Amino acid sequence: MSLSMYQASVPVFIRMLGNLSAILDKAAAYAETKKIAPAVLLGARLAPDMLPLSSQIQIACDSAVRGAARLANMDLPSFPDTETSFPEFQERLAKTIAFLKTVPAAQVDGSEERTVTLKMRTGEVQFQGQAFLLGFALPNFYFHVTTAYAILRHNGLDVGKTDFLGKS
Amino acid sequence: MSLSMYQASVPVFIRMLGNLSAILDKAAAYAETKKIAPAVLLGARLAPDMLPLSSQIQIACDSAVRGAARLANMDLPSFPDTETSFPEFQERLAKTIAFLKTVPAAQVDGSEERTVTLKMRTGEVQFQGQAFLLGFALPNFYFHVTTAYAILRHNGLDVGKTDFLGKS
Repeated sequence: MSLSMYQASVPVFIRMLGNLSAILDKAAAYAETKKIAPAVLLGARLAPDMLPLSSQIQIACDSAVRGAARLANMDLPSFPDTETSFPEFQERLAKTIAFLKTVPAAQVDGSEERTVTLKMRTGEVQFQGQAFLLGFALPNFYFHVTTAYAILRHNGLDVGKTDFLGKS
Repeated sequence: MSLSMYQASVPVFIRMLGNLSAILDKAAAYAETKKIAPAVLLGARLAPDMLPLSSQIQIACDSAVRGAARLANMDLPSFPDTETSFPEFQERLAKTIAFLKTVPAAQVDGSEERTVTLKMRTGEVQFQGQAFLLGFALPNFYFHVTTAYAILRHNGLDVGKTDFLGKS
């Protein structure tokens, strides 16, 4: 079976968000053991002008949902960024994964040359589907998942590369 | 044109390593302006038991080279990890990109079901080519490029998402 736009996107998002969910479970347990207020970890940043863990998780979810929806030519679902606790973030991840599972493979496949329009702060940017996936959606998604992991590692959480990559 | 194993790997590695090279140029200029010894930035870590910037760059390069070579069924080239300065890291990136440009697209394409064997600390792991690319090579590559970026941001370098993603 040859590589498809669907295989290169939706299952990748689902897998990595599942790994992030398991890492957040460890973070919640760590906060409890160490008597760290969850808001301290969720508000932690690697630099004062970088977004905190909470936003990294929300943007990881959004970039997966919007990336998949754009490729599938579906309406963009909107999840409000209201989470303030680990259980709420787990719910956000679960809702995101549930949405991704509804994206029909057949609608993503064949999207290589579909025009995708992004509204950026600097104006509209148009991509072809394949360039959007490989040059924007995936690197942006991995950026936020990795940064979430890095914030937690920086704050003492005992996780490693296996947690990030998940079981092979 | 439908998505191929080559398109989803080699040009992605080349593009992101080019972005990393531009970020390292900014880091070298920043070190000079702020009179920070380059070794301080290259040795910076996000946690005492995480690898420093130098290793993050080396592993980003290695994961691209080895990922591409494994998919193309080529001998794995080995670049010694001897870099200690920004110009030496730029050379490493340039050598890595030069190697990637020699990987024949036709040898990577069709590798979806090729068996890829990795020697891990825990023993040998076998993947099919597509699972290797999507579940190991790409996430591992993005992990190290993002962590390199995050270490520099944490140390005050003024870069943003556009530097990470590059020009679209």
